[in-house]
Amino acid sequence: MKLAVLGVGLVGGSLGLAVRDKLGAEVAGYDPDPTTLDRALQVGAVDVEASSIADAVSGAEVVVCAAPVNSLPDLVAAALDASGPETVVTDVGSTKLGLAEAIAGHESASRFIGGHPLAGAETSGVSNSRADLFEGARWFLTPTASSEGVLFDRLHNLLADIGARPQAIDPAEHDRMMATISHLPHVLANSLASRAAETLSDGERRPEVGRSFRDSTRVAGANPAIWGEIFKANSGAVADEVDAVVARLQEVSKLLREGDAETLRAYQEDAYRDRQLLLESGHAGGRLLELRLAVENRPGVVAEIALALGRAGVNIEDMSLAPSDDQRTGAISIWVAGDQEAGRAAAIVAELGHSVTTVAGA
Amino acid sequence: MKLAVLGVGLVGGSLGLAVRDKLGAEVAGYDPDPTTLDRALQVGAVDVEASSIADAVSGAEVVVCAAPVNSLPDLVAAALDASGPETVVTDVGSTKLGLAEAIAGHESASRFIGGHPLAGAETSGVSNSRADLFEGARWFLTPTASSEGVLFDRLHNLLADIGARPQAIDPAEHDRMMATISHLPHVLANSLASRAAETLSDGERRPEVGRSFRDSTRVAGANPAIWGEIFKANSGAVADEVDAVVARLQEVSKLLREGDAETLRAYQEDAYRDRQLLLESGHAGGRLLELRLAVENRPGVVAEIALALGRAGVNIEDMSLAPSDDQRTGAISIWVAGDQEAGRAAAIVAELGHSVTTVAGA
Repeated sequence: MKLAVLGVGLVGGSLGLAVRDKLGAEVAGYDPDPTTLDRALQVGAVDVEASSIADAVSGAEVVVCAAPVNSLPDLVAAALDASGPETVVTDVGSTKLGLAEAIAGHESASRFIGGHPLAGAETSGVSNSRADLFEGARWFLTPTASSEGVLFDRLHNLLADIGARPQAIDPAEHDRMMATISHLPHVLANSLASRAAETLSDGERRPEVGRSFRDSTRVAGANPAIWGEIFKANSGAVADEVDAVVARLQEVSKLLREGDAETLRAYQEDAYRDRQLLLESGHAGGRLLELRLAVENRPGVVAEIALALGRAGVNIEDMSLAPSDDQRTGAISIWVAGDQEAGRAAAIVAELGHSVTTVAGA
Repeated sequence: MKLAVLGVGLVGGSLGLAVRDKLGAEVAGYDPDPTTLDRALQVGAVDVEASSIADAVSGAEVVVCAAPVNSLPDLVAAALDASGPETVVTDVGSTKLGLAEAIAGHESASRFIGGHPLAGAETSGVSNSRADLFEGARWFLTPTASSEGVLFDRLHNLLADIGARPQAIDPAEHDRMMATISHLPHVLANSLASRAAETLSDGERRPEVGRSFRDSTRVAGANPAIWGEIFKANSGAVADEVDAVVARLQEVSKLLREGDAETLRAYQEDAYRDRQLLLESGHAGGRLLELRLAVENRPGVVAEIALALGRAGVNIEDMSLAPSDDQRTGAISIWVAGDQEAGRAAAIVAELGHSVTTVAGA
């Protein structure tokens, strides 16, 4: 089988490595940047460097467009134009509706099936490619009523064969879902960071920012080039989410100005339940429990704890460190999936002499 | 010197330990729960168990009210009533304006100086008390124009002597600042969790929640009893912050519906700068750099990394783990203060065979 990868960054490169490693497929790579393409060959992500899109897709059963979101409509159209009537063309962009609409009028639209793997956002570049990047990763596919079934099957099976978990979803639904769980958090983080900068930057008394602030603003201002494109590509769905949160916040403001402590406590309890619902949905290993540790904040203390848990085979789902202002003491929260696992972890941490409080999923 | 602690939980107990250890002071403790008071005596947080507020404050130079926010007005008034004309009365509540207003009319209001240590929120109970809980911790004090200078001096020196960093601030300004950096993030986290639960809970397709969502909702629904009280005690300032964010979000919604990619990119860049400004203000060790690692997600991998950094004396300011959906691979972000320290950390991590990308403060 021959696969063409148009755009050999982290995702395109990792896909090339995976299909070569696991399926023995031939991979033709094309990239507008010749240095990048050379690097892809060096790391084994492609078998051959194609000199053009037409060269790359010639004879390919599957063409994957792995380029920035704003260049995808032209790239996918070019790939459809250049490829044969049996070739499925897909992409890996993080929004799906705009592209689907842009391609809908193409004479070969039935050969295009949009895709979006949930993997690999932290590093970039073909040099960081890994054959196992998509192992177990959700890979959304957005076929439409006009999509050819045999091509969808081929693409689905290819992704499953490299260890990904393909799932079909309507493009609009995909974008709305991503707006909620990914794009909206970025907008809220931005708003919080900017509001705080506005009110606190008097130069004289900038407070130490605490843990909740840091967690809540961690993604504020993330990669402006990429995020400008994502916001643009999914602007309608993100704006809808922002409007929905505005309506909620207006209610909260009213509650704050008029409510009593009991009402505000009930409001907080509702949020607790909502978060649990969402967190538990994503963790097959059982509900997440949080272990809160008070520790001396010195080099090595995290290592001791993580090492002891690792030795006992306890997997840390998530971790957050919050050094106190003096940097001498700190709070560590460790999330572990499942009550039994959390119990073991708490015992191990206590054994090391740290005080530990276990909180159900907080 | 004699100190009275009214309410011996984590904060009251740790203060007792600190002044006994470091200043050789006598500590009289009072708590409405006799079991808690017994425990305080056992762990050495108090010298004597007082049978009443009057018994505790008798002969004390300093009285610290360390009880839940909603009980503080009555407790502080009772402490002022029972204590002598040379005694300073303070508290450790996380909001300050309401209490200051409640006490303003008291005939001994000049002996009350509000306080708020930024420490110890992660665990609770006198059993977790530590003499070093306040070492290097910011401790806000809220004297007013009527406060007696000699009493402020005594309180300020006591806190400095146990290693805290006292700082005077206007009660209203304190509450507004906490509204921005602590209370507002909780409201936004709640709104995000609840919005996501509303749109995504169709039972059939709850998505795995990603890292940005988890970070942004980590404090959603935190301790409803405590947070109901905090929201109530600081309702005006928090509502003002919520309203300000609503105004921002309404602008963002407009920008999303009308703006082009360049405008949205500029919006994202503004948020990046705002976050940097705030993060850098809190870290004397130099700007924070983020090291992004792609690693195999197995027990022990975090330990290896943290241990290697610890051995080299590199302190981890903050850490975030994001296992991929399959739990086999994962991204780790480590925050290190200062360019040089980050460079050393990156070299150590690379030496261990992990790919690492260093990002300035992202």
